[in-house]
Amino acid sequence: MRLIDSLATTPAMAEIFSDSSILQAMLGFEAALARAEARVGVIPQAAAEMITRLARAEAFDPSQLATLSLRAGTMSIPLVKALTDRVRSVDPESAKFVHWGATSQDVADTAMVLLLRRASATLALDNQRILEALHQSSNQHAATVMLGRTLLQPAPPVTLGLKIAGWFGALRRGWARLERAFEETMIVELGGASGTLASLGEHGIAVRAALAEELQLQNPDAPWHTHRDRLAAVICACGIYTGSLGKMARDISLLMQGEVGEVAEPGGDGRGGSSTMPHKRNPIACSLTLAAANRVPGLVASFLVGMTQEHERGAGGWQAEWATIARVIEDTGLALASMTEVAEGWSVDASRMRANIEATGGLIFTERAMLLLGPKMGRDAAHQLLEEATRHSKLGDVLEDYLSPEEIRELNVPESYLGSAETFRRQLLTP
Amino acid sequence: MRLIDSLATTPAMAEIFSDSSILQAMLGFEAALARAEARVGVIPQAAAEMITRLARAEAFDPSQLATLSLRAGTMSIPLVKALTDRVRSVDPESAKFVHWGATSQDVADTAMVLLLRRASATLALDNQRILEALHQSSNQHAATVMLGRTLLQPAPPVTLGLKIAGWFGALRRGWARLERAFEETMIVELGGASGTLASLGEHGIAVRAALAEELQLQNPDAPWHTHRDRLAAVICACGIYTGSLGKMARDISLLMQGEVGEVAEPGGDGRGGSSTMPHKRNPIACSLTLAAANRVPGLVASFLVGMTQEHERGAGGWQAEWATIARVIEDTGLALASMTEVAEGWSVDASRMRANIEATGGLIFTERAMLLLGPKMGRDAAHQLLEEATRHSKLGDVLEDYLSPEEIRELNVPESYLGSAETFRRQLLTP
Amino acid sequence: MRLIDSLATTPAMAEIFSDSSILQAMLGFEAALARAEARVGVIPQAAAEMITRLARAEAFDPSQLATLSLRAGTMSIPLVKALTDRVRSVDPESAKFVHWGATSQDVADTAMVLLLRRASATLALDNQRILEALHQSSNQHAATVMLGRTLLQPAPPVTLGLKIAGWFGALRRGWARLERAFEETMIVELGGASGTLASLGEHGIAVRAALAEELQLQNPDAPWHTHRDRLAAVICACGIYTGSLGKMARDISLLMQGEVGEVAEPGGDGRGGSSTMPHKRNPIACSLTLAAANRVPGLVASFLVGMTQEHERGAGGWQAEWATIARVIEDTGLALASMTEVAEGWSVDASRMRANIEATGGLIFTERAMLLLGPKMGRDAAHQLLEEATRHSKLGDVLEDYLSPEEIRELNVPESYLGSAETFRRQLLTP
Amino acid sequence: MRLIDSLATTPAMAEIFSDSSILQAMLGFEAALARAEARVGVIPQAAAEMITRLARAEAFDPSQLATLSLRAGTMSIPLVKALTDRVRSVDPESAKFVHWGATSQDVADTAMVLLLRRASATLALDNQRILEALHQSSNQHAATVMLGRTLLQPAPPVTLGLKIAGWFGALRRGWARLERAFEETMIVELGGASGTLASLGEHGIAVRAALAEELQLQNPDAPWHTHRDRLAAVICACGIYTGSLGKMARDISLLMQGEVGEVAEPGGDGRGGSSTMPHKRNPIACSLTLAAANRVPGLVASFLVGMTQEHERGAGGWQAEWATIARVIEDTGLALASMTEVAEGWSVDASRMRANIEATGGLIFTERAMLLLGPKMGRDAAHQLLEEATRHSKLGDVLEDYLSPEEIRELNVPESYLGSAETFRRQLLTP
Repeated sequence: MRLIDSLATTPAMAEIFSDSSILQAMLGFEAALARAEARVGVIPQAAAEMITRLARAEAFDPSQLATLSLRAGTMSIPLVKALTDRVRSVDPESAKFVHWGATSQDVADTAMVLLLRRASATLALDNQRILEALHQSSNQHAATVMLGRTLLQPAPPVTLGLKIAGWFGALRRGWARLERAFEETMIVELGGASGTLASLGEHGIAVRAALAEELQLQNPDAPWHTHRDRLAAVICACGIYTGSLGKMARDISLLMQGEVGEVAEPGGDGRGGSSTMPHKRNPIACSLTLAAANRVPGLVASFLVGMTQEHERGAGGWQAEWATIARVIEDTGLALASMTEVAEGWSVDASRMRANIEATGGLIFTERAMLLLGPKMGRDAAHQLLEEATRHSKLGDVLEDYLSPEEIRELNVPESYLGSAETFRRQLLTP
Repeated sequence: MRLIDSLATTPAMAEIFSDSSILQAMLGFEAALARAEARVGVIPQAAAEMITRLARAEAFDPSQLATLSLRAGTMSIPLVKALTDRVRSVDPESAKFVHWGATSQDVADTAMVLLLRRASATLALDNQRILEALHQSSNQHAATVMLGRTLLQPAPPVTLGLKIAGWFGALRRGWARLERAFEETMIVELGGASGTLASLGEHGIAVRAALAEELQLQNPDAPWHTHRDRLAAVICACGIYTGSLGKMARDISLLMQGEVGEVAEPGGDGRGGSSTMPHKRNPIACSLTLAAANRVPGLVASFLVGMTQEHERGAGGWQAEWATIARVIEDTGLALASMTEVAEGWSVDASRMRANIEATGGLIFTERAMLLLGPKMGRDAAHQLLEEATRHSKLGDVLEDYLSPEEIRELNVPESYLGSAETFRRQLLTP
Repeated sequence: MRLIDSLATTPAMAEIFSDSSILQAMLGFEAALARAEARVGVIPQAAAEMITRLARAEAFDPSQLATLSLRAGTMSIPLVKALTDRVRSVDPESAKFVHWGATSQDVADTAMVLLLRRASATLALDNQRILEALHQSSNQHAATVMLGRTLLQPAPPVTLGLKIAGWFGALRRGWARLERAFEETMIVELGGASGTLASLGEHGIAVRAALAEELQLQNPDAPWHTHRDRLAAVICACGIYTGSLGKMARDISLLMQGEVGEVAEPGGDGRGGSSTMPHKRNPIACSLTLAAANRVPGLVASFLVGMTQEHERGAGGWQAEWATIARVIEDTGLALASMTEVAEGWSVDASRMRANIEATGGLIFTERAMLLLGPKMGRDAAHQLLEEATRHSKLGDVLEDYLSPEEIRELNVPESYLGSAETFRRQLLTP
Repeated sequence: MRLIDSLATTPAMAEIFSDSSILQAMLGFEAALARAEARVGVIPQAAAEMITRLARAEAFDPSQLATLSLRAGTMSIPLVKALTDRVRSVDPESAKFVHWGATSQDVADTAMVLLLRRASATLALDNQRILEALHQSSNQHAATVMLGRTLLQPAPPVTLGLKIAGWFGALRRGWARLERAFEETMIVELGGASGTLASLGEHGIAVRAALAEELQLQNPDAPWHTHRDRLAAVICACGIYTGSLGKMARDISLLMQGEVGEVAEPGGDGRGGSSTMPHKRNPIACSLTLAAANRVPGLVASFLVGMTQEHERGAGGWQAEWATIARVIEDTGLALASMTEVAEGWSVDASRMRANIEATGGLIFTERAMLLLGPKMGRDAAHQLLEEATRHSKLGDVLEDYLSPEEIRELNVPESYLGSAETFRRQLLTP
């Protein structure tokens, strides 16, 4: 992890996009390509073995490669050259067959797919954890009443269980979309210079199939050098999923406000303190998640706008992708890891929730009063009467004129004004 | 269509988001809600009939409602008031039951879903047309060779059929994503003030189910006032689909360049002229599509960033949505209609395609030469030899040293260097 | 105002981008061009007079023009044709000179500049109002103490006057940037087909100068058909200014929360109510401002990404601009008008502010305690001591061990822990 | 430089945002703060000297700090702790005064300002180089005629000198905006916990002034913890400047197309090759610039949307900034360095330019013909006549009917149809 990105990634995600991980993914492609070509008989078996043996990340200097990549406009050219040099130094004959028939974007695209496969596995684990934690938490708080809040104003009560179930539902849907997008992207790229695999003559289809097997990727209908919709689907699904994590973070950071005080992020392990204010329990995980949810939409736009790539390989659009993809995935990983930590360790103050309801002095039940008065005088007459009563703080007087003491008492019991909250909650949790 | 948006919509899409269409969608919700509540026994049948009878767009003044909406921060409040007034003027008793138990966002969200249903039907028709046109066109040009172009430089040949099949594949995938996103969004919104339907007491679930039936929408697990991921999925899918349309437009606009001249957009009906240059055939449909593909990514970002909505109803995020959704859908409709027109009516100059290949003087076959020379001297020695030969325009001399006249002749025949192009093309078109 | 945009504009801004306003701006260009050309002697004086007389918006059908514009890919071609037809019907000789020497983008760009001039005047008025209101309000509340809040947690006190002055400072800087950007954009566009004014032969420079005079615009160094940086500067400055308005709206919407209750937006005139909850005073103006601040950044991205326009006139980038510019300006106008209304009419509950400070039980003064204890035991030992004390709610005990009763009493007086707040406040207000 | 960012930065920019550079900037703040406080008498002189002596980047472990930063939600807390520990190990008394009175965001914001100062100096040098190269190049090609191109179609001629001058003008304006934005951002941040400097009692103003002197930064009117408009102005100005660089890159990449062939990027030093196609001279610098111009607008949106920061310090918005700022500056540096290399080393093929004009067969002079015919038959009758003539390839016949052979010959001489091109060119270059 670099300092500049230290609030925009996680150690796991930073490792996936580290130099050695990228090198290994690219070298893994070159080795698998050689083996696939040997299997089909395009290159000698010995060359495939030698290339596989020497295609190891630790043998290459990433810093030098980075500098050369910037000159070449692609990471592939200097890496292929370095790998060829390395093979030649050991076995000149095998060196002839490095990168045989492939183009720069073949290795770059497939390597990115391999990195995304690793990222998706990491995300899947955290996603499972957060869903489990939220599921359990929602059940636990099925009957915990709290203020509803609309436009940041008090509203009729909800249950904390329903609120949590709402987050759960959005994340489960979001993960389903993301998983589907990852799945359709787990494909090999191999097209050669113009995407026809002309370089492999009659063997193109067979080599590509063997390569897919070697890498345990799917084999798409055709090369996709300038059709970036599958990658775009991953990026967009990350955007939506991070947005839902951001919504959860927004809610929790608001509930943590001093004046509200209904929940708290877990502290400990360096989290939540302040350099100047020893008393503080800051919503750090929520802030980092909201930060990610702030950053990702713009990155999604950057990716989408690069889709209009020219002809068989783009001039600008393709070159723009890597830095953007990495940032989106790292931000998604950060948001998910942060909210997983919260979901697993937060604390809830149910008595403060009830106290905040009571502090509204019954105001939040004016909807209920309106519905009681509505049949007697019409919905909008009741609305107007109550609006004026609350403006002049005479709600009690007004209600006494129309309702029995029993009705008024019942009016203020949050548990009896939850409507279908529990049904909705259960439906949201239903597998 | 307004002038300000006249390059950013189509007549069909502009109609869907017109005042009368919006009014009808919102009023349709109120009428269906009343009928649903009458069916469940929550309000009198007569009220439902009266509300349904009077909930007609032409009876309301959209301009006045727009002004009131801006004050209220929602279209729903003034419209509900106007409808109530109208019902009251005919039948005061029924007026009591307008909008019974619903909240502003219930009508707004469901109305937007109804508008999206109309939009998706329009898009589906154009999508079918463009896929059919591209399918046919790809088959027709299965053997039409043309330059491959990578980083805007000449590359080994492809077929026009493959290029078209690439567009086809991306659009078919894109439509599948968009269709799925539309489907999961075809849901009713009904939650009342805090999303618990407390206002409907024990009848909430039944009313919601009846409402969904009335509107022929699905009934989701729970209200989604602040969980906007389904809408976000539609917006993102539009972004990807428009990106793929933009890629097709980019290719065609480049192929139409005077110096390339390989294809032309259909003209006629006011299209493609210039006010100053009588000779011009401008790529208007492509330009409008590229314009849409420029605009949409930023709009996607706007939508995603609004997902972090507070608690039970947001303050800012929700209010931001309508204008953005409409713009995205209208831009998608514009891009699709424009490229459909192109796909159905463009002209192809196959002889110019061949001439452009020939004009490269065989340069594009250096990959092929490299592969022939590779086994003799190694891939990268061959690369270096050819790179220098082309730099000094001595490609012919160099090749003569290593290849037979027959090999050299064969080297420059594009039809024999297409690799798996036809296989890829067929796979892309396979249902 | 259309319903779809009714939460994304103001009546004044909607009028500026209305059909009639756009038509008048475009026709105003054509008339001014004719007069300029007559002054230089390029066209007959009689033609200029006739064109000027007939170039009136009400004579044209905007709806039909919009449809034709979509076909032509520009509004200019159908409008010029319609104007020419209209002139011809009265005076065939003059009709020959309509749009003489100009290209479509000349009229479109200059018309947009004219619309922006109107918009800037409207914004300037509101900006002046909001700055005045904030200035006065800041002075009024120079001594009103309230909680500081960092990461949404209580922090040492500030004054409301300082908070307001912070908004004031950001808006004043923002307006200065926006004003500068508008100024550099108040330029005429006249370049003819390729931006050389070859169509006007030796008279190009003189005609352009005369046109600028007619329209009271500046005359730039050269045509700017594909150099859109000045427009981009306006769009970006709107983005920054709206961001600062959004920050003010964020603060106020948070201060309006039921649990905080320190300020309230002005109500009345249809503002702030709820269809279901008669008691509500919703932060409508803040929500609309936050909605604008959500939308605008994506629109800024849309504009910027369109800057890479091809050669002498772009294919896609230019066509993308109008809808985006209008939305940005309308959103800026909405945010500004909304917050101006708030600044001029909000109410402040200073006693609630003090009560919220007191409710923290002195916790917010731990920084202060740390600074008192720091010299005795070191800054970070004090930090650690206080962090533990607050965790175990033993702050009082700890302080008693180290501080005198007098020191402890003084510790909790917010007025004596305001540091340089008043100096900063005055500096922010200084002209 | 990391591999993942190797197409999205330059070595110089990567160094500025490297761990050691960031550490040094943050430590530089802490040291300067201590010296400032010692000058004012707030802390002992010996402490200031000790802190200054020990605040050296190489003594700290950036990787460990990055991990701790992610936990703390800010880089400042772990760094201040590490510095305090280091000072304590040498001089416990001095350790008490590390970070005295400052808050985390004070060091983070000021450190970013220091990084931006370094970045602006690097950018300024490249900007000067590119402007000089373009100025010279424009003069050199003042009389080099080439096709104008509008909507990617041939149009009346321009000069290469004018085209270059257009790039020059946009970049000069863009730099002026960027320089102004950098200037207003060269300010110190020092506000303490709530931005009042209460922690420094009566010495706040004096300490802040001394700190500004120590760092040679300006002293703003007040702390700006949640007023991010100045940073936003830098980010936006980068967006506009990169957009203008992207426009230049777009033009050049199009002119480099095989079918156009009018210019070429400089090659050499690993630039422009292809792994598969030995003949290729790819527009690498242009592609990298277009990639940057694709990425930056989304990043601008990310920054702007984070401006709505809560109260005295934001929860999410602030935390989002660093990664975004670094990416924008690095992309700007990449685009500028790339196009500077092009401007200084590109090659121009003036004869190909003329040949491309001639290849249009006079079509581009139809505007000119229209203007000759216009006075005889009216502008739009001429337009129609010529439009039909070009459609039926009978332009020559038509012209012969109306123009003398001498007029027709003159019609096709590009040099005599350049209008005010040279005047515009000179005005664009005028200081």
